[in-house]
Amino acid sequence: NQAFQDTAEWKFLNDYTYLAAMHHKIRMRAFDEARTKLTPLKHAAVLVQGGTSAMFDLYDTDCDKCVFRQEAYFLYLFGVVLPDCFGVMDLDKQQTLLFVPPVTYDSQRWMGEKRPLSWYNKRYLVDEVFETGDLAKILKEKGIEHLHTLQGINSDSDLPTSLSPDFPGIDEFKKHDKLLYNFLTELRVIKTPQEVDYLRVSSRVSSQAHVYVMRHVKPGMNERHLEAMFKAYTAYFGGSRHMAYTCICASGANGAILHYGWAGRPNNRTLVHGDMAVLDMGAEYNGYCTDITRSYPVNGKFTANQKLIYEAVLDAQETVLRAMKPGVRWTAMHCLAERVIIERLIQIGILVGGTLNELDEAGLGSVFMPHGLGHFLGLNTHDVGGYTPEAPIRPTRPGIKYLRTQRTLEAGMVITVEPGIYFNDPTLDEALKNPNQARFIDTKVLDQFRGTGGVRIEDDVVVTSTGCENFTMIPVEVNEIEALISEAQANSE
Amino acid sequence: NQAFQDTAEWKFLNDYTYLAAMHHKIRMRAFDEARTKLTPLKHAAVLVQGGTSAMFDLYDTDCDKCVFRQEAYFLYLFGVVLPDCFGVMDLDKQQTLLFVPPVTYDSQRWMGEKRPLSWYNKRYLVDEVFETGDLAKILKEKGIEHLHTLQGINSDSDLPTSLSPDFPGIDEFKKHDKLLYNFLTELRVIKTPQEVDYLRVSSRVSSQAHVYVMRHVKPGMNERHLEAMFKAYTAYFGGSRHMAYTCICASGANGAILHYGWAGRPNNRTLVHGDMAVLDMGAEYNGYCTDITRSYPVNGKFTANQKLIYEAVLDAQETVLRAMKPGVRWTAMHCLAERVIIERLIQIGILVGGTLNELDEAGLGSVFMPHGLGHFLGLNTHDVGGYTPEAPIRPTRPGIKYLRTQRTLEAGMVITVEPGIYFNDPTLDEALKNPNQARFIDTKVLDQFRGTGGVRIEDDVVVTSTGCENFTMIPVEVNEIEALISEAQANSE
Ligand SMILES: [Mn+2]
Ligand SMILES: [Mn+2]
Repeated sequence: NQAFQDTAEWKFLNDYTYLAAMHHKIRMRAFDEARTKLTPLKHAAVLVQGGTSAMFDLYDTDCDKCVFRQEAYFLYLFGVVLPDCFGVMDLDKQQTLLFVPPVTYDSQRWMGEKRPLSWYNKRYLVDEVFETGDLAKILKEKGIEHLHTLQGINSDSDLPTSLSPDFPGIDEFKKHDKLLYNFLTELRVIKTPQEVDYLRVSSRVSSQAHVYVMRHVKPGMNERHLEAMFKAYTAYFGGSRHMAYTCICASGANGAILHYGWAGRPNNRTLVHGDMAVLDMGAEYNGYCTDITRSYPVNGKFTANQKLIYEAVLDAQETVLRAMKPGVRWTAMHCLAERVIIERLIQIGILVGGTLNELDEAGLGSVFMPHGLGHFLGLNTHDVGGYTPEAPIRPTRPGIKYLRTQRTLEAGMVITVEPGIYFNDPTLDEALKNPNQARFIDTKVLDQFRGTGGVRIEDDVVVTSTGCENFTMIPVEVNEIEALISEAQANSE
Repeated sequence: NQAFQDTAEWKFLNDYTYLAAMHHKIRMRAFDEARTKLTPLKHAAVLVQGGTSAMFDLYDTDCDKCVFRQEAYFLYLFGVVLPDCFGVMDLDKQQTLLFVPPVTYDSQRWMGEKRPLSWYNKRYLVDEVFETGDLAKILKEKGIEHLHTLQGINSDSDLPTSLSPDFPGIDEFKKHDKLLYNFLTELRVIKTPQEVDYLRVSSRVSSQAHVYVMRHVKPGMNERHLEAMFKAYTAYFGGSRHMAYTCICASGANGAILHYGWAGRPNNRTLVHGDMAVLDMGAEYNGYCTDITRSYPVNGKFTANQKLIYEAVLDAQETVLRAMKPGVRWTAMHCLAERVIIERLIQIGILVGGTLNELDEAGLGSVFMPHGLGHFLGLNTHDVGGYTPEAPIRPTRPGIKYLRTQRTLEAGMVITVEPGIYFNDPTLDEALKNPNQARFIDTKVLDQFRGTGGVRIEDDVVVTSTGCENFTMIPVEVNEIEALISEAQANSE
């Protein structure tokens, strides 16, 4: 323990100087691009509101649901984790203004002494700092007449922007809410070099946490213990306070439930010999998300059938990683993965009676991989920009309709590559009711696999100028995994 | 690690049979008492709504702020952790009805296969189970005309009930919202024997986690590492997925900030030789909260001054624990703690020039302990029932005005006992500006302590028929703490 307590990773991920500089550069880039892409208006400013503490109230109690997490667009531009703030970018003067909530005498005893406003200037590299109560007054003093505000629909949740900025006096400004959301979304899609470096180290620590879990897993444990170990590692060695998303620690048949681990399926099954585990876990580090899945047998030894499915998925992932580069359409990568999976399922004998093209045409890929190949990753786990007014629209064909984006890859995009094969009963039953799919499925072979869950392998990847770089570093070959787990289990006995 | 993976504590805290029986007993008790205390109406039912998944949306994304946490009144009666439910208690028939959200074909792939409704009957020991869409229809079929619904103000947050039950057809029933909140609140104040047992083991595991942190703390670590270790222990050995409240890992001067650790003060200071740490951390186990604070020097060796303050607080706590029993007013316990603290501060030399009574009268207790002695503990960290229409009203005098309850102790109440002494600059500066307090403070002696933070010792206690039982089991004497930490630090070198 002691030796690792301040790893280089912990220091890097929690270096507030680095973070402030990173978000400062993002603001400078936004100023630059705003000239041509956001507005030709004079006396205009960008106004973003941070998350509010009220949103984190645990019902009517005076505790929170969890530690406050900042709204991603505000965090992107300002890097400020404090709740109840506003941020302004004066597009004429290229000045950044941060508005922080007032501190009362009484609240100091509970929340800490009031900081001088200059503390925020230095900490976050913003030009001027005021209290939120002065927002309208300061904006008028600065001669600002137009406010660009956020308004949009998140393409993964279909939910509208949760904060529509409001403050006393807002009516004295002309509000423009048609442009800012897409403008910032497009910026967020292409990561800056500093963001790429930050996401690389973030994924590295989450990778190490997966390895830690692999080294400690064994039958008799509960799924909940795997969640606990992953969180422990990322908190202790990465400084993470939040998971990027709810941990999916699915063993046995649960592996076929894509979002297993939620309150209704709370990672509470005991691992037994022969189980595969599908472990989809990623921590968040100062707002940046990681999203990694590993699948392996809990006793460290693949059965013949487990190996067949695992290597099919691995082949799909490696094929995609070799093909990814700027100019390649994400949809094509999804279809490529589906085709590798279909080919492998033909070899295994689950799919029969047709050519690869026929089976592909009949949508068999999406019967076994009923989700998209991957999604953008950044300040959200399913990061924004998948579908925008400029980007290709959401398709309706089974399989690719699950895609969270259909965009053409560009350098600086960070995206997950997560093919999978699942034996999900409702999905299989539906396919068997569809004659056009059922005729290609050998139910006798399929039945050998039913109830065994699934396999997903998910890595976090940045598109580079010539191809891609995989941030995730975890032993992934069958023999590597078997060696790692068996060595660890032997040592613990 | 391996040896502990399924401790007796883990098994007990995550035994769903026990939990279901516990909540079933609670419902039976509610039926019993409802006859005399809730309503003389015929054809009446209690209707409670569970928390909604939408409340946990992380802004507009399709991830959650954190894993869903159930609303406490609904959880109290039904023990169901699933979001988007309703619960009904038919007061005529003494029948319990659970309404669960519908499951679509498509959602099964993501959330798990649809369970037969009978699964819920068995799992939660309720009489009948339906889907939420049928709520109005079923209530009418059951002949229910009156609905008792929750409406009240939480006395710790001053926030109104966050869910006001609503469903299509609710207007066809007569709603009564004046009685249920206080009725259930009074039930929650007096824990059932099963709840007492559950809270005992919960506190025991959080105690062990504190000991784990003590055994691993050392200078050079970051406060965040202490939070990480506590969470790791309670998750791995207790199955906890949530903290009951944000971890307070305050070192050095931060110890004087009562709610240190929130997003604006995120437990990120490096521990240095000579620091005291004030560690207020408690996990939640299936909805039940623990709340424990320990204070000790991070290098394991008390300085003379640290020992003086620590033993003053310990004396206050032990004095209160000896005096607690049914019939004793909590306000009296608070005043008792304040008087021990004043006496000790006189001995130390910080307070001078007056008798104990004079100093007490001048409110010096609340200058150094500017919070209440403790609060009810249960399904909320600051559990309900502190101030109700029947209970004594909130006082205004400094010191006791911070009390979260003034009630007279009864067997079955679970309450924290958490005296403290803090050197909080804004609070001390205010006192020094008040001549009636300043004249009793020796600033020269005080200055030796300023900047050193504070000390709080907080235990979780149940009132018994003859006194009280302390659930918290952590070495607490100065020599015990020194031995524990020095032994652990020696072993790790
Ligand atoms: Mn993913
Ligand atoms: Mn407390």
